[in-house]
Amino acid sequence: MTEQSPAVARLAARPPQAALDAATRALADIFDARLVTSQAVRVQHGHILTWTPNQPPDAVVFAQSTEDVAAAVKICAAHGVPVIAFGTGTSLEGHTNAPYGGVCIDLSMMNEILEVHAEDLDCVVQPGVTRKALNEYLRDTGLFFPIDPGADASLGGMTATRASGTNAVRYGTMKDNVLSLTVVMPDGKIVKTARRAKKSSAGYDLTRLFVGSEGTLGIVTEITLRLYGIPEAISAATCQFRSIKAACDTVIETIQSGLPIARIELVDALTVRAFNNYAKLGLVEAPMLFLEFHGTAKGVEEQTQRFGEIAEGHGGGPFNWTTKPEERTKLWQARHDVFWAHQTLKSKPEMTGFATDVCVPISRLADCVTETIRDAEEIGIVAPIVGHVGDGNFHCGPLFDPRDEAEVAKVKAFVERLVRRGLDMGGTCTGEHGIGQAKIKYMREEHSPETLNVMRAIKRALDPQNIMNPGKVLDA
Amino acid sequence: MTEQSPAVARLAARPPQAALDAATRALADIFDARLVTSQAVRVQHGHILTWTPNQPPDAVVFAQSTEDVAAAVKICAAHGVPVIAFGTGTSLEGHTNAPYGGVCIDLSMMNEILEVHAEDLDCVVQPGVTRKALNEYLRDTGLFFPIDPGADASLGGMTATRASGTNAVRYGTMKDNVLSLTVVMPDGKIVKTARRAKKSSAGYDLTRLFVGSEGTLGIVTEITLRLYGIPEAISAATCQFRSIKAACDTVIETIQSGLPIARIELVDALTVRAFNNYAKLGLVEAPMLFLEFHGTAKGVEEQTQRFGEIAEGHGGGPFNWTTKPEERTKLWQARHDVFWAHQTLKSKPEMTGFATDVCVPISRLADCVTETIRDAEEIGIVAPIVGHVGDGNFHCGPLFDPRDEAEVAKVKAFVERLVRRGLDMGGTCTGEHGIGQAKIKYMREEHSPETLNVMRAIKRALDPQNIMNPGKVLDA
Repeated sequence: MTEQSPAVARLAARPPQAALDAATRALADIFDARLVTSQAVRVQHGHILTWTPNQPPDAVVFAQSTEDVAAAVKICAAHGVPVIAFGTGTSLEGHTNAPYGGVCIDLSMMNEILEVHAEDLDCVVQPGVTRKALNEYLRDTGLFFPIDPGADASLGGMTATRASGTNAVRYGTMKDNVLSLTVVMPDGKIVKTARRAKKSSAGYDLTRLFVGSEGTLGIVTEITLRLYGIPEAISAATCQFRSIKAACDTVIETIQSGLPIARIELVDALTVRAFNNYAKLGLVEAPMLFLEFHGTAKGVEEQTQRFGEIAEGHGGGPFNWTTKPEERTKLWQARHDVFWAHQTLKSKPEMTGFATDVCVPISRLADCVTETIRDAEEIGIVAPIVGHVGDGNFHCGPLFDPRDEAEVAKVKAFVERLVRRGLDMGGTCTGEHGIGQAKIKYMREEHSPETLNVMRAIKRALDPQNIMNPGKVLDA
Repeated sequence: MTEQSPAVARLAARPPQAALDAATRALADIFDARLVTSQAVRVQHGHILTWTPNQPPDAVVFAQSTEDVAAAVKICAAHGVPVIAFGTGTSLEGHTNAPYGGVCIDLSMMNEILEVHAEDLDCVVQPGVTRKALNEYLRDTGLFFPIDPGADASLGGMTATRASGTNAVRYGTMKDNVLSLTVVMPDGKIVKTARRAKKSSAGYDLTRLFVGSEGTLGIVTEITLRLYGIPEAISAATCQFRSIKAACDTVIETIQSGLPIARIELVDALTVRAFNNYAKLGLVEAPMLFLEFHGTAKGVEEQTQRFGEIAEGHGGGPFNWTTKPEERTKLWQARHDVFWAHQTLKSKPEMTGFATDVCVPISRLADCVTETIRDAEEIGIVAPIVGHVGDGNFHCGPLFDPRDEAEVAKVKAFVERLVRRGLDMGGTCTGEHGIGQAKIKYMREEHSPETLNVMRAIKRALDPQNIMNPGKVLDA
């Protein structure tokens, strides 16, 4: 590592138009109708689910194979043109925007499940396969893939952002469930990161380096994923608490006691009000936990009862639970409907939600959530909270009218305070959404200059032209 | 990444003696009596538990803090002198040898447990803390750290080699249980890889990059580890099978059925003979599984019984199990004594064992083990097998007389065939021992030239002088 660590981006502006034109022509020669430059398609591929402005690419290539991706990247590399990978466009932090123009490689046509090895509990998929499509495909095998971000994201995108979801407390995140990757490098070379063995200590962990690298080091074109046997029995439960702290203390004690909880989701009192609005549930407006246990029949009964005792010790109740599938669905229905329930909190139909997340050590979770609720109340905004509480990770979705500049500014400042609160408590600025464009500024607060220099050194070593998704993760 | 990827090592020979002398003098100024150059200490620090010849460093520094390590590395960097980290010296593939001389940094005095966060289920330790010392320290907290390689290794060494052990099927390997690291980089800068949050998607996963990098990218000086609640109940079981295949098929069905098994260890018939020799157990000389289930009282009973049914379906038996602590210890006693039991297989007292491991997709495990046993029988060597069978990982320990060159050659060739057999079955050349010196040649067989070039590019970017543990992991 050199003493001087210049900013990563040599490319801090659009490449010359001639380079873009030459790359586009060369791509059109190969991809024909699968190279699209219409404005509608370009804008759609820069689409961002937040308030970050749309920055469309100059062209979109619809790839159908690893070789397609390699060919497209080679052309872009030859012309010094940015390359942005695209899955389903459900990222939340501006990952698919093209601030310096360039070529978007749309991977949604690469949606084949290539291999399922039931005995090894793994499968090989193309990056355009969505998590729901994979589980649909696996339905008759007795196996499932547990990682479940809110959206029906592509597995390539989930890999790129190190996604997780409600099952992470039991099954981990994408980093724990990717066994191997095929990656097209910034020079168009194709690299396989690892064998299909469940563990290995043979060299640097390139798999984990690419998981979460957000397309800035290469483009993932094949993913080997771990699968799990569908548990014999599942129990679902809900429990209300007088305070966020009582709910969090219950979670801490549950995990400390070694109960292998599969899901444990917290919603705040505001979200419970939304449930009441949406489905007339008549619940007390108090924080609530949704839980799931996986195991054998007697095992989950016992685990659920043990949890009930712990919850009671913290004043929790009423505690409802069941192992029957149809009743389980009913018990968790409110949690599944949370997106729609939150819509009922809008005071104007024009309002929209802004999704952000932080993750803190679980001992600080109650403080972080409670202070965030107080902050929202003090400034008079509606900002419901839903948390993957077993990991110390929570989402906050302030509602605002995007036409109202003052309100936008107020919510932006609120989100900044939320992220800093998480960082101050030893947490991370993003638990599972990634950095993209929107959270780059927090990288300097979360990591030391020395740590960022290590990341920059790796970026420069693998992508010296800085053509892979420039303007993301690390500063330009 | 450049088109030309020269071999990593600029340093393919010892540095000039003047450089070594100057570095040693500068180190002596700072470290005084903690800089040792006596032959005995140097030889001990190049000590290797295999047949790789001893290659001692020129000096040994006994570090007491991160700042000590940074100071020592800075001096070595200034003089272009190699730096080799040392924990307990229990590595198996030549990790601590000094083929180009240089300075060994002994971390065994850095053995403090700095923080235990019981609510967050994590702790911060110095690299010289051993796994047993940590669990001893945690005993009264109700928490434990599950990763258990055979030796009482240091947690720094376990991090560096991406170690695992018998609990990996349930708790993962070091890669899954390190939350964050403090690392002294090759230029002496100090880097913290991540916050203490249980998950994060904030940038490149530097934690996982250093886990398994065997001291070639930096020296780990603080480790934040995940801890687990000691389960309410544990059951232990043993079961014998008519064939390796029947035992492996039982394991596959058990895992597919979603039973959350904590440990599942296979020993071959030869090892059972050794148990009989050692403790007069009178067992049938047939393959045997040792199991452990963790959970609630009823849960583990039910899991164990379900396993018994699966085993019976594959002709397994007798099936013995218990949840009582003293009986559990007795049931697993043979497995715990395996090292001593294997000594009884020696036909001459001068014989020694050679430990190697491979890891294959579990569907190929029975084939890989069976072919390895046949190979040993055909060439007339004694090579007992013990496997972490839930991961597809097994150890093979051929016995040989190190004075008998022909026998050494025979065993070396046997080990080569074993590793290639694992690779041919889609596996890895090392499941949990790392690459060190001894397995470098297999890196070229396990990984493609493009994949190795990515590793080399990272190594060059972070350690351009190639002073960090040169001659390990990647070829010189």
